[in-house]
Amino acid sequence: LKVHARDKKLADDVDLHRIAMTTTGFTGADLQNLLNEAAIMATRADRPLILSEDINEAMMKITMGPEKRSRVRNVRDQRITAYHEAGHAIAMYHLETADPVTHITIIPRGWSLGTTWSQPVQESSHLTRNEMFEDIVGLLGGRAAEEIVFRDITTGASNDIDRATQTARDMVARYGMSKTIGTVSYHSEDEVFIGGSYGKTKSYSEKVAGAIDDEVKTVIGSAYERALELLNENRRKLDEVAEFLLKNESMTGEQFAACMAEASTETEE
Amino acid sequence: LKVHARDKKLADDVDLHRIAMTTTGFTGADLQNLLNEAAIMATRADRPLILSEDINEAMMKITMGPEKRSRVRNVRDQRITAYHEAGHAIAMYHLETADPVTHITIIPRGWSLGTTWSQPVQESSHLTRNEMFEDIVGLLGGRAAEEIVFRDITTGASNDIDRATQTARDMVARYGMSKTIGTVSYHSEDEVFIGGSYGKTKSYSEKVAGAIDDEVKTVIGSAYERALELLNENRRKLDEVAEFLLKNESMTGEQFAACMAEASTETEE
Amino acid sequence: LKVHARDKKLADDVDLHRIAMTTTGFTGADLQNLLNEAAIMATRADRPLILSEDINEAMMKITMGPEKRSRVRNVRDQRITAYHEAGHAIAMYHLETADPVTHITIIPRGWSLGTTWSQPVQESSHLTRNEMFEDIVGLLGGRAAEEIVFRDITTGASNDIDRATQTARDMVARYGMSKTIGTVSYHSEDEVFIGGSYGKTKSYSEKVAGAIDDEVKTVIGSAYERALELLNENRRKLDEVAEFLLKNESMTGEQFAACMAEASTETEE
Amino acid sequence: LKVHARDKKLADDVDLHRIAMTTTGFTGADLQNLLNEAAIMATRADRPLILSEDINEAMMKITMGPEKRSRVRNVRDQRITAYHEAGHAIAMYHLETADPVTHITIIPRGWSLGTTWSQPVQESSHLTRNEMFEDIVGLLGGRAAEEIVFRDITTGASNDIDRATQTARDMVARYGMSKTIGTVSYHSEDEVFIGGSYGKTKSYSEKVAGAIDDEVKTVIGSAYERALELLNENRRKLDEVAEFLLKNESMTGEQFAACMAEASTETEE
Amino acid sequence: LKVHARDKKLADDVDLHRIAMTTTGFTGADLQNLLNEAAIMATRADRPLILSEDINEAMMKITMGPEKRSRVRNVRDQRITAYHEAGHAIAMYHLETADPVTHITIIPRGWSLGTTWSQPVQESSHLTRNEMFEDIVGLLGGRAAEEIVFRDITTGASNDIDRATQTARDMVARYGMSKTIGTVSYHSEDEVFIGGSYGKTKSYSEKVAGAIDDEVKTVIGSAYERALELLNENRRKLDEVAEFLLKNESMTGEQFAACMAEASTETEE
Amino acid sequence: LKVHARDKKLADDVDLHRIAMTTTGFTGADLQNLLNEAAIMATRADRPLILSEDINEAMMKITMGPEKRSRVRNVRDQRITAYHEAGHAIAMYHLETADPVTHITIIPRGWSLGTTWSQPVQESSHLTRNEMFEDIVGLLGGRAAEEIVFRDITTGASNDIDRATQTARDMVARYGMSKTIGTVSYHSEDEVFIGGSYGKTKSYSEKVAGAIDDEVKTVIGSAYERALELLNENRRKLDEVAEFLLKNESMTGEQFAACMAEASTETEE
Repeated sequence: LKVHARDKKLADDVDLHRIAMTTTGFTGADLQNLLNEAAIMATRADRPLILSEDINEAMMKITMGPEKRSRVRNVRDQRITAYHEAGHAIAMYHLETADPVTHITIIPRGWSLGTTWSQPVQESSHLTRNEMFEDIVGLLGGRAAEEIVFRDITTGASNDIDRATQTARDMVARYGMSKTIGTVSYHSEDEVFIGGSYGKTKSYSEKVAGAIDDEVKTVIGSAYERALELLNENRRKLDEVAEFLLKNESMTGEQFAACMAEASTETEE
Repeated sequence: LKVHARDKKLADDVDLHRIAMTTTGFTGADLQNLLNEAAIMATRADRPLILSEDINEAMMKITMGPEKRSRVRNVRDQRITAYHEAGHAIAMYHLETADPVTHITIIPRGWSLGTTWSQPVQESSHLTRNEMFEDIVGLLGGRAAEEIVFRDITTGASNDIDRATQTARDMVARYGMSKTIGTVSYHSEDEVFIGGSYGKTKSYSEKVAGAIDDEVKTVIGSAYERALELLNENRRKLDEVAEFLLKNESMTGEQFAACMAEASTETEE
Repeated sequence: LKVHARDKKLADDVDLHRIAMTTTGFTGADLQNLLNEAAIMATRADRPLILSEDINEAMMKITMGPEKRSRVRNVRDQRITAYHEAGHAIAMYHLETADPVTHITIIPRGWSLGTTWSQPVQESSHLTRNEMFEDIVGLLGGRAAEEIVFRDITTGASNDIDRATQTARDMVARYGMSKTIGTVSYHSEDEVFIGGSYGKTKSYSEKVAGAIDDEVKTVIGSAYERALELLNENRRKLDEVAEFLLKNESMTGEQFAACMAEASTETEE
Repeated sequence: LKVHARDKKLADDVDLHRIAMTTTGFTGADLQNLLNEAAIMATRADRPLILSEDINEAMMKITMGPEKRSRVRNVRDQRITAYHEAGHAIAMYHLETADPVTHITIIPRGWSLGTTWSQPVQESSHLTRNEMFEDIVGLLGGRAAEEIVFRDITTGASNDIDRATQTARDMVARYGMSKTIGTVSYHSEDEVFIGGSYGKTKSYSEKVAGAIDDEVKTVIGSAYERALELLNENRRKLDEVAEFLLKNESMTGEQFAACMAEASTETEE
Repeated sequence: LKVHARDKKLADDVDLHRIAMTTTGFTGADLQNLLNEAAIMATRADRPLILSEDINEAMMKITMGPEKRSRVRNVRDQRITAYHEAGHAIAMYHLETADPVTHITIIPRGWSLGTTWSQPVQESSHLTRNEMFEDIVGLLGGRAAEEIVFRDITTGASNDIDRATQTARDMVARYGMSKTIGTVSYHSEDEVFIGGSYGKTKSYSEKVAGAIDDEVKTVIGSAYERALELLNENRRKLDEVAEFLLKNESMTGEQFAACMAEASTETEE
Repeated sequence: LKVHARDKKLADDVDLHRIAMTTTGFTGADLQNLLNEAAIMATRADRPLILSEDINEAMMKITMGPEKRSRVRNVRDQRITAYHEAGHAIAMYHLETADPVTHITIIPRGWSLGTTWSQPVQESSHLTRNEMFEDIVGLLGGRAAEEIVFRDITTGASNDIDRATQTARDMVARYGMSKTIGTVSYHSEDEVFIGGSYGKTKSYSEKVAGAIDDEVKTVIGSAYERALELLNENRRKLDEVAEFLLKNESMTGEQFAACMAEASTETEE
């Protein structure tokens, strides 16, 4: 990364170490691309130095596609999206192990209607059971906010639910983290090559398949309960963050942290 | 769209924004084609301007094939079709979230014996649970009308039932909208490539498969009950719309709205 | 059809409209072929005009193959076939919605040992639940006659049972016509392409598969009961029609109708 | 057949009609081959005319391969085979609908250690439930004889059991001949083309599959009981036929019939 | 065989008939190879004539690969192997229908750590239920000896268990030898061709599959009980044979028979 | 091995016999490679002779990839890894049949974050049930340590759990080592060739599949209990070994053995 950064003019707020952590898996070319995009943004904004926000923007553009401000959005959709993203952010804020929120936006990008970004403070090779559980709580924060605020739920949480399901399934069937299922692994033991691609076959009995599904449902069920609980306890904050997003479209990590800090005093009133 | 519309003479009643909403997914060529067909229809009718109805007609021709007036239809079939379409329209009229009906016809087109068209008043990216449920109620309105009027049901609802089943299945197994199944996704996790195409494999247990099927049946069952209820409550209107269709073959959105407005007073008598 | 019929000399009893109804799905070439065959038959019989019966014969030859009078048949087989076909015809005669019988024969054609033909009085695009149920009753009339008359059943009903099973399965799993299964469709949602052809995969749970099978069995069971009932109530007619067939090999729709008309008085004695 | 027989010198006992019945499905070339083989046998035996037995021998050679007298057989194996074949023959003799036995042998041919041949007296296109059931009884006669005589059973009945299973399965699942399963067909509805060949997929539920298996077992169980009963009632005859076979290796239909006729008087003593 | 043996000098103890029986399925080239190997062994041992033991050795080399004396074996492994092979031999000695043991060795060959050879006294085409059952008892004799002597069991019985399972499965599902399963065959009815090879599909229900598995387990369970019983009753002989093997590595059929004969008197003390 | 070692200068502590045991399955080229790598390491360290530790290091490099000291690791990860490896080592130390630990390290190599190496004292061809069970206990020692020390468990045990599951499955379904399942083998009877590769199909019933899964869970469950027990009893040693690793990154077999020897006295205090 340092090599690629050498010939760019970076502002002081750019923390190369933090960038390194969020770009795990990037090739040299990817990094080059990231910095180039950031430089272009700085140039467009007529800034001599690349700011941290330019790099964030470049990162989002690369991983999720460019902003789609032109996409017509109705008020209802924007309200739902704002509360959905606020739900993610607030749930994550109150979790023990979740990474700090660095950016929230309701500007559509690619397939997504809004996004909440977070960044690990420290690189880690292990994931604990608790971290995986709280990851699911954060993912379901969006759906939970919809239920609390609109008393109806939407298809917008589809991707979150997919990821939550996959994480819960890994906990239960791959990492042996469920007492009920035991310290046994049931994942993709038999990869079957059919035609020109791979399919997974279950290498275990229907009985175990049923037990795994029950356990996955239980894990997700209690994670969703936790998300509802966290958001109900912080309902006022939920409104504040959502309203901020509706007014400003995006919220930086600092703005969010400040808002949450205030809020906690208000709640005590 | 505006680009394609530039060199056509459009009547004042043509609302480009509305057309845009109903042509989501159309390519430039598709739009061109649509406007050309509308122009041909205006020309045939010896009109200098393209009317809104020309565009509707062009749209129907493109998506469902040309009218098949020549197809011999017996009286029984026409009565069934008229009540079937009236059932759709009236159920949708009384639903909270359904789009307004814009056109009803019993003139066969392509594979279909009749059609009820509706148009969203506002573009939306989210679908709520309630919207999806009411979508199913509208789809089953045709079958419900058959049962109420003829005390027998027909194969004509086949396509409606397929779509209702797919929507209910998505609600339950994909969007986690069922309390019983939980906020878990069970859709097509494992795409298996066999030979030269893709097949879906169930990535969940028979136990869950059974629970999903139960829940899908429950959702559809209560949607059908709702459809029966709405049509029984509006039985007189059902007859009126069906009779109008038998006499005139088609009914515009305005004619339908007017009929429903009158009807509501009559019902109160 | 009229085009193809133009240069043929047709007798007055030939009803082009009726032919049209029984040739739904025929191409122009098929119709040409039909009329040519009929012309040949008229010529062979040294008749200047093509009679209605020539067209019937041509139709049967085209769809089922030529007669196989040469096939050696023993007396037992002929008796079974005669009662089997009589069973079909009489069951259909007493059903509300069945098309009138137009021809019964025990002359083997192609794979079939005998045939009962019927013709719709009116073309229809819808099939009602009742029509489908009575269709099954008619199909099982042959097997029911065997059981009543010979107290033993034969493999001769194999094709009837296949068709009855398919119809019952469509009613239950495709057209949502069973209260138990609900207004849900379970048909061939997932077409899997394997190698060079298509196979159907079940997209539903074993639980539903079992419920569908139960329901199919129930539908067919009550249709078979109905067939037994109809034939037991008309046992004398069954003997008459079977004896007529054993003596004359074939029976026209008129002969059958006349026989049934007489019979009804006799039964009352 | 007559054409092919024209230039052969046939003895008076050769009944062309009977040959025709046992050669259903033979092509002209097959028939030619049959008569040539019979002619060779007559020549070898220095006979001017082809006898009926030459034709039988030719038929067996063509369908099962030449005799394998050279194959070393121990005494135990020969006793088992003799009783096994006697069991088939005697069971068939006492069944109502079985075809008369025409030849029994314990000379190995091809894969088979012995054979019992029968010939229909009359050609038939239908098979009744009773005929199919008695067919199974005859097939299980060999195994039943082993159990009665040796109090142990052998792998020699493997082919008989396969065929009995297939017949029972057809009765139950294909021809709707079981009250429990109903007049429903469950056979090979879905032919799946995989790679370069066809496989059958079950198009029915596990519940029905289990019910079919139960019913197949019941049918075969009572057929086996019937076979045991018939052979126990005719135990003395069983010994006589087996001993005849051990002494003479083969038994003609006439010798068998004569033996059975005597036997019946003896049994009464 | 005689042809191939013609130009070899065979000792008087070579019994061509016995060799013939153990070489069923050998081609002419296989036999030639066998005799050549035996001749080489005689030459190496500087013997003018080929002895019976040369032929045995040649046979073992051909079917299992050459001896692997060089393979380092620890004392524990050798003890286990010695008891394992002694277990096979002694179980077989006490079974009614097992072939006499002709050679026991703990010298590794190919994949195998030791071998017990037996030879049928008489060729047979039938296998009875009792013979198949005792075959399983013999196969499980090795494992049973391990359990008795070491109170622990090893992976060394893996191949024996595979073969025992296959035999039990054939008895139950292929040859109809189980009262519980009935005289029904359930083997490989549907061979499915997939890609470039054949796979077996179950053509029966899960219910039957479960019943077959239960029955296979029962058959093997009682065979194992029988093996334990036979070895416990002959525990002293088991030690003698194992010790002989540990001292001499191999034991001829004659040595084994002599040892067993002595032993029986000792046991009576 | 001696051949390859001939031209290398080996220190006296290098035991060729021990190396031979840990290189079972190595080809000549593999051995050559191993010794060359060891020679390079000795040269780098400026040593005239190849030490035993050079060979260990070379072995680890070849089988797991080179050390990845550069990989940034946070303190928490290192603590978890240290306790995880200490858990393996201490569990193995207290097992009857486990091989002695020869090296423990928390330096990442390839995909692994740390490794515990052991070496058999004697080559063996058999694995007993007890050895396989204790193998599982050793594998689960890492996870057990995490649970005891951190009250949370991590994804780091994933590979251990896979291997433990496979061993337990082999015990139960392949080697017939479970009383509940019986001396029956259920492994991969039907290898199905699909497309261009092999897939395993279950050749047994769901009932047995469920019983196998239950038994596998039971085996692993009691192995995990045993691991927890061993580590709880040696909690102080667990801390000592983990702390040693955190300070020194690696621990030789001798250091570990010495530490354990001391510890045992301390525990008694």
